[in-house]
Amino acid sequence: MFVEKGLSLFVAGFLALSIGAAGLEDLSQVKDWENPAPGVWKATLGNMKGELRYTDIAAEKPRLEALKELESVPFPFKEGKVGVLVSSDNRVMIRIPASADERLFGFGLQMDSIKKSRQVLELNVDHWSRGGGRTHAPVPFYISSKGYGVFFNTARFLKVYVQIGNRKDSKNNPPFVDRNPPPNEPQPGAWQAVPFADAVEAQVHGGGLEVVVFSGKSLLDVVSRYNLYCGGGALPPLWGMGFWHRVPAAFTADQTRAEVKEFEERDFPLDVIGLEPGWQTKSYPCTFEWQTKRFPDPEAFTKELLDKGVHLNLWENPYISPASRIYQAMYPLSASHTVWLGIVPDYTIPKARKLLTDQHYEDHIRIGVSGYKIDEVDGYDQWLWPDHATFPSGTSAEAMRQSYGLLLQNMLYTDLFKQRNVRTYGLVRASNGAASGYPFVLYSDSYSHSQYITGVSAASLGGILWCPEVRSAGSGREWLNRTQTVCFSHMAMLNAWSSGKKPWSYSDVTDKVRDVIKLRMQLLPYIYTAFAEYNRKGTPPVRAMILESGFKLNERVIAGQLDSEKNPYAEGKVVETTDQFMFGPSILVAPFYEKQGEQRTVELPEGGNWYDFYSGKLVGNGGKITVTAEGLQERTPLFVKEGAVIPMLTKAVNTTRQAYAHPLEVRVYGTVGGSFELYEDDGQTFDYQQGKYRIRKLTAANGKVVEEVVKDGAPAMFGPVESVKFMTQ
Amino acid sequence: MFVEKGLSLFVAGFLALSIGAAGLEDLSQVKDWENPAPGVWKATLGNMKGELRYTDIAAEKPRLEALKELESVPFPFKEGKVGVLVSSDNRVMIRIPASADERLFGFGLQMDSIKKSRQVLELNVDHWSRGGGRTHAPVPFYISSKGYGVFFNTARFLKVYVQIGNRKDSKNNPPFVDRNPPPNEPQPGAWQAVPFADAVEAQVHGGGLEVVVFSGKSLLDVVSRYNLYCGGGALPPLWGMGFWHRVPAAFTADQTRAEVKEFEERDFPLDVIGLEPGWQTKSYPCTFEWQTKRFPDPEAFTKELLDKGVHLNLWENPYISPASRIYQAMYPLSASHTVWLGIVPDYTIPKARKLLTDQHYEDHIRIGVSGYKIDEVDGYDQWLWPDHATFPSGTSAEAMRQSYGLLLQNMLYTDLFKQRNVRTYGLVRASNGAASGYPFVLYSDSYSHSQYITGVSAASLGGILWCPEVRSAGSGREWLNRTQTVCFSHMAMLNAWSSGKKPWSYSDVTDKVRDVIKLRMQLLPYIYTAFAEYNRKGTPPVRAMILESGFKLNERVIAGQLDSEKNPYAEGKVVETTDQFMFGPSILVAPFYEKQGEQRTVELPEGGNWYDFYSGKLVGNGGKITVTAEGLQERTPLFVKEGAVIPMLTKAVNTTRQAYAHPLEVRVYGTVGGSFELYEDDGQTFDYQQGKYRIRKLTAANGKVVEEVVKDGAPAMFGPVESVKFMTQ
Repeated sequence: MFVEKGLSLFVAGFLALSIGAAGLEDLSQVKDWENPAPGVWKATLGNMKGELRYTDIAAEKPRLEALKELESVPFPFKEGKVGVLVSSDNRVMIRIPASADERLFGFGLQMDSIKKSRQVLELNVDHWSRGGGRTHAPVPFYISSKGYGVFFNTARFLKVYVQIGNRKDSKNNPPFVDRNPPPNEPQPGAWQAVPFADAVEAQVHGGGLEVVVFSGKSLLDVVSRYNLYCGGGALPPLWGMGFWHRVPAAFTADQTRAEVKEFEERDFPLDVIGLEPGWQTKSYPCTFEWQTKRFPDPEAFTKELLDKGVHLNLWENPYISPASRIYQAMYPLSASHTVWLGIVPDYTIPKARKLLTDQHYEDHIRIGVSGYKIDEVDGYDQWLWPDHATFPSGTSAEAMRQSYGLLLQNMLYTDLFKQRNVRTYGLVRASNGAASGYPFVLYSDSYSHSQYITGVSAASLGGILWCPEVRSAGSGREWLNRTQTVCFSHMAMLNAWSSGKKPWSYSDVTDKVRDVIKLRMQLLPYIYTAFAEYNRKGTPPVRAMILESGFKLNERVIAGQLDSEKNPYAEGKVVETTDQFMFGPSILVAPFYEKQGEQRTVELPEGGNWYDFYSGKLVGNGGKITVTAEGLQERTPLFVKEGAVIPMLTKAVNTTRQAYAHPLEVRVYGTVGGSFELYEDDGQTFDYQQGKYRIRKLTAANGKVVEEVVKDGAPAMFGPVESVKFMTQ
Repeated sequence: MFVEKGLSLFVAGFLALSIGAAGLEDLSQVKDWENPAPGVWKATLGNMKGELRYTDIAAEKPRLEALKELESVPFPFKEGKVGVLVSSDNRVMIRIPASADERLFGFGLQMDSIKKSRQVLELNVDHWSRGGGRTHAPVPFYISSKGYGVFFNTARFLKVYVQIGNRKDSKNNPPFVDRNPPPNEPQPGAWQAVPFADAVEAQVHGGGLEVVVFSGKSLLDVVSRYNLYCGGGALPPLWGMGFWHRVPAAFTADQTRAEVKEFEERDFPLDVIGLEPGWQTKSYPCTFEWQTKRFPDPEAFTKELLDKGVHLNLWENPYISPASRIYQAMYPLSASHTVWLGIVPDYTIPKARKLLTDQHYEDHIRIGVSGYKIDEVDGYDQWLWPDHATFPSGTSAEAMRQSYGLLLQNMLYTDLFKQRNVRTYGLVRASNGAASGYPFVLYSDSYSHSQYITGVSAASLGGILWCPEVRSAGSGREWLNRTQTVCFSHMAMLNAWSSGKKPWSYSDVTDKVRDVIKLRMQLLPYIYTAFAEYNRKGTPPVRAMILESGFKLNERVIAGQLDSEKNPYAEGKVVETTDQFMFGPSILVAPFYEKQGEQRTVELPEGGNWYDFYSGKLVGNGGKITVTAEGLQERTPLFVKEGAVIPMLTKAVNTTRQAYAHPLEVRVYGTVGGSFELYEDDGQTFDYQQGKYRIRKLTAANGKVVEEVVKDGAPAMFGPVESVKFMTQ
């Protein structure tokens, strides 16, 4: 125990006579921080016995060896400034200082904004529309503009007061202001409904709380260390980077075949077909068994697709129908309550995991299915089990709600795929802390394009993957814009489960839609390396602008342009930029979306030149530029940083299978030269974890690109460099 | 301890190997019910030590003597059907059976609807706009169409699953339905997102939970027994029944004087003037001290108003400014956190109560102030103290949040007024369970007229008073309609704190507005008796139609017209009627409001004739009628039941002071005769609690009204019956 027990909170009876002072002495100081690696400090508050930590169900162990190679950085808080109260009624509260000139970002897949200063958040896994912090993946991790991050590593509902809640004994409270003064009575400022408070305070109902603090040389470094501590980022199979298409819920094998054929005929890339609920004999709850009235020969069907290079992904939710053959065996291993009358297995129990994964192997994996879309693990309360449901392992319903998406990912990733040395890539509807290692991408039914773009930034701050999927559109323009966004995300997917749409459904934009999908395919070497960097170094492959060095918002905050001592309220007026994001190491994506019409503003980071991706022309260094759809010939606005070296396929391919051994084109932007470490492996197994990968360093200097193999653990994945383009002359 | 301890919920570590069956055996049966009075059963679950019960801070003790006079009724649940789980991690869950043909209503001031079947509610005191159960007064009490009620008597946040959450071992679950069947595969019904569940399940984070079950011969009887158990209903002073007007926040004494004068000149009734924040030296947080720049001589000002028969009500919130003279002494008796930087006193501590009430006596009561409006005790989270704040008595922040409005009512009612044998009537922004005895009326800033009317019904199911206050309007018609609603509520008030409006602000309706206010004044003897019945018998003075015998919705449910065994989903389609309500024993009020335009439908209860209030004409017996504004000469639609005897003043008065000794007119409706027990006392002290009241029984039969004094504890309040009108010939 690192923490002295807090004051006992309870006295018997009402109208208590006992009176104590209520100063900071109700808190103990957190003093004993473990420091397992540079920039990582851990404290255990209260009693963690029986508490589930997110890192317990991470994909991989903490990557301490990678963390230990990083630079040492100082602990971000002054000694004794982190306080804790462990109460006798099963509550633990922690207080972490935060100053007025500090912006706090994160808390997972928050689709309204990434800045979370001056908010009260309930970090519960729930339907995203509940708001107030509740969302698909309310990752209890925030980062500060001061260059550190805090992770609450406990599968409990967490209520967090972000710079809200003024302690009476704080020295940093703003001045008192009368809200209704008589005329001519001066006030020290405008009355504020929510005065700035100098801390983040968070509480769980639980016996303990583990807190992990990360520091770094930059915000990106902080996030990367978080990801490494959570086991490193996911490295999907190469086929996962291709184009995904989900067919309508009631589609048959023949209808699906016809759709795949149409992709070929129309020259559209396709790597994955996703089947929605109708493939099962029963859904909501599920049997996980093939509906032979629609799919009479699943094995032949799956093989036929694979022969074309197309992988099969199956939708499911984890609630089991009485019609399932594993229902009876699973019944005693399931919760007291049902979901849509299906039993809710307790997947902390090995026997329950084995029942499901054996069935999944036999019915799906054995015949060649490549992965899953795990639906309905988020909420609402009226859909899922109640907070008081019981599970046979004794795990609380709350911990189960917070972690069910993680548990499903854990079970499928570990027991079904990794143990067979096969990588997977799929979707999941809910996730949480320490998820970075899982090759599962979140999705939502919000369908606001601007929220979907904000999701790209939000996800990158919390070790989660996000798919701003395309479903339908009100116009060809919107369809094109949405497709452009999704092609620069973690998963390029059209989800037609309800709409029945196809990439060519809007004939006025079909060629432009095909172009952007093909551009993604051409960028496969670049994208795959970006994921490898996520895996090995924790660098998010697609990420928020605030993680980019030289981006103006950070600059402004850190330079203290807001005089928070004199007027901390000014803080609330600055809104962060989330409608553009970084894709891989050097490409800035600024999609057109609903409110932008035919033109938009792009904010360029400072500290180096930026170039138009297509022409190589200089567009600026810092500041704002305006781009128009017409000026870009309706292509996605893409900007590349000085010194970028971008490996691509010389031509687009229609499946990732064709990318293997395909010759490369290398594009070089700017005039100062640069390099790119191209990562290659077999693209489908976990052999890379045993060092079986290759790194080709591509160095551009003096009008040439030099290739050097700096790590030779595996054969080359792609072909030789056949073409070099110096885009900026 | 009545309950065996439930299974310990926690096992150490992850991926537990222990496997237990998860049937109903995770619950203990609640067997030991105390039965303190007929129709009242109480069970204590877990350990209530240190838990605050709402009845601990009720205005008065349970009225067991009144309850014991009531008829015996059977316990509503089969033996052993109420289950409980007391978990080792400070949680208590209770399961109460509910069948598919049962509608559940209540849970306090819910402004969207009174029916709460098939919902998950978080019964937290919070800003009403949060929804999902959170509201000003989330009274944890529900009633069933089967004729019983359940009260969760614990000041904890309560999460309640109302007929939601299907246990896997339930015998009453609906049949399984496949959501995506192939063509021609028959299903037992339509797939439902929320299948009906056969219980109410509720959970607190706390060591214990007290549950009180009420039964009765009717829903009204159930609610009345609840109110009696909570100490009986409030009996306000007679002046509280007059017209209230709140002036703008920055008004001075002179502006207020001028406004009072204008009421006189324009012949508008006025009993109370409410001052808003500007009367204090500082507000948000407060000093509770007079702002002499606006009110140079508060004592003279108050006396001047009282001399005109006008009482003064003062707005306040309970958070204390450093500029207050009690700040220093209160500081150590306050919470760790502030609200708007004001300290939050711990009013469970006698010394804190004395500091405030001494100051209030000296500054306000001593000079004649009559009461308070207690604002800002509801929410949001970002306004009030955090859930982890500490209070010097050791009371949890959660219990404080749930009960702060009650505590304020308790302190002011008991320590400031009752101990001086002076009645008060005022407003409070938040309340909760066991509040029926408090003479404080809730209000909101929702301002939807239809929600305000729904609030009238909702309040009556949970022992709370509600003011659908008038503030402003988009038209004269709306202004009139809103005034008509408020004149038939617990408090007839115009709140101009922001709008600056006056009753005559809409010149096209000024006379009609005056008419309805004057009608309320004429009805004072009837209204006052209705409150006395609330006090003595628990009968809500203004109440939901579902409490009225013969009202069709109840009839329909109880008669089982919905075949819930075959199709429980049909249940969700019936919406209860809340846009009309009962005012006193015999008047049905059906206000015009936004969506009703110039005409509306009125549903009449069955079982007796109903008559137009103004003309005495028969309008029907059961069924629906349509009324038009034109047909009613723009008066409020009012309908009176067969046999009603309604005592009124012969003429309207402009202050309640003029009502004393004023002669009476008695109106008789229908043809069968009837009676009314007119209650009278001194109208201002608590002497009535010592039997100092008078009951005059007015019996109408054979074309005459006979007067008989059946209780003679006090002199008459009103004058003799001077006029008798048989309205129905």
